[in-house]
Amino acid sequence: MSFRYEIRLSGSGGQGLILIGIILAEAAGIYEGRYVAQTQSYGPEARGGVSRSEVIISDEEIDYPKAMSLDMLLAMNQDSCDKYFHDLKQNGVLLVDSTFVSQIPTSYAIKIPFTLIAREKLGREIVANIVALGAITQFTDVVSIKSVESAVLDRVPKGTEKINMNALKEGIKAAKQAKEELRKLSKSFWKTT
Amino acid sequence: MSFRYEIRLSGSGGQGLILIGIILAEAAGIYEGRYVAQTQSYGPEARGGVSRSEVIISDEEIDYPKAMSLDMLLAMNQDSCDKYFHDLKQNGVLLVDSTFVSQIPTSYAIKIPFTLIAREKLGREIVANIVALGAITQFTDVVSIKSVESAVLDRVPKGTEKINMNALKEGIKAAKQAKEELRKLSKSFWKTT
Repeated sequence: MSFRYEIRLSGSGGQGLILIGIILAEAAGIYEGRYVAQTQSYGPEARGGVSRSEVIISDEEIDYPKAMSLDMLLAMNQDSCDKYFHDLKQNGVLLVDSTFVSQIPTSYAIKIPFTLIAREKLGREIVANIVALGAITQFTDVVSIKSVESAVLDRVPKGTEKINMNALKEGIKAAKQAKEELRKLSKSFWKTT
Repeated sequence: MSFRYEIRLSGSGGQGLILIGIILAEAAGIYEGRYVAQTQSYGPEARGGVSRSEVIISDEEIDYPKAMSLDMLLAMNQDSCDKYFHDLKQNGVLLVDSTFVSQIPTSYAIKIPFTLIAREKLGREIVANIVALGAITQFTDVVSIKSVESAVLDRVPKGTEKINMNALKEGIKAAKQAKEELRKLSKSFWKTT
């Protein structure tokens, strides 16, 4: 049975979604030797400010490099969350930046304030994308943290390696907390019903 | 009749082919409002050092975002030239960096020493990709120079705007010379035969 994993990274232009798409693709493709296709699409809506980047990871050559049924959706703003959550497959993971996404259109989502973390813990909002990338590694097992770290170091501007490594760590930490809360919630749910 | 234009940008990892793919895509998609899909693919050969990036530009939504028959191939090294020239369609444009590509596998190619120009005219080999991008604008009319300039300014690191604008200009200049030489050659060809 062949394996195909689809991730869409969405938000506003300027939130660095293309960069983390490339980093994820290089982590899986170059460092883990998988087949990967990474795509950006633009249409007449491109000026509207919703930016999206897709990564497809497979164990065989990818004939159709466009996402059809998302295993994971990262939504860094409300518009992209509203626009794309329908494309998630059943049990797909919705990961939102709760700094900007307040209305969750589905019952199950992981809410982490990526931009707030970037601002308060790292002093620079611009690394919110790398915080999100750290969190992504905790909700999928298609890439290892080590491969993502290597790919981040290849791609970020010289002199910003340290802040980006710290951003990755903060994302991983926040994702672990979110997972722990989910675990507790589901435990108490089963106790009370 | 619908319009579809396919460009593949190929060479070694590190030659900045993904960046110019994104710039071309944003020039056509954001600044000219076309439908655009821009893709990077990785497979087990990714460690081998051939890097490739594709841009598909269309006047309608792109269902299949993978190049099938190239209108233009940029080859920045010999390996990528050898590997991909078969994918060019008849009368497709082969544009090579003659700094590294010495054997041309077909009778018709545009040879410009992008890396040499970057080194000698701009003092930095790293902008060879932007020199090539300037040349690309002269061999296709799917994007305007103005849109490409805007997209370059959006994407290059702060502080490097001037060298990148100059790199674009040198690429345009070299492409104009190459076109003029081609024109003279074909003129003398028709005279002598």
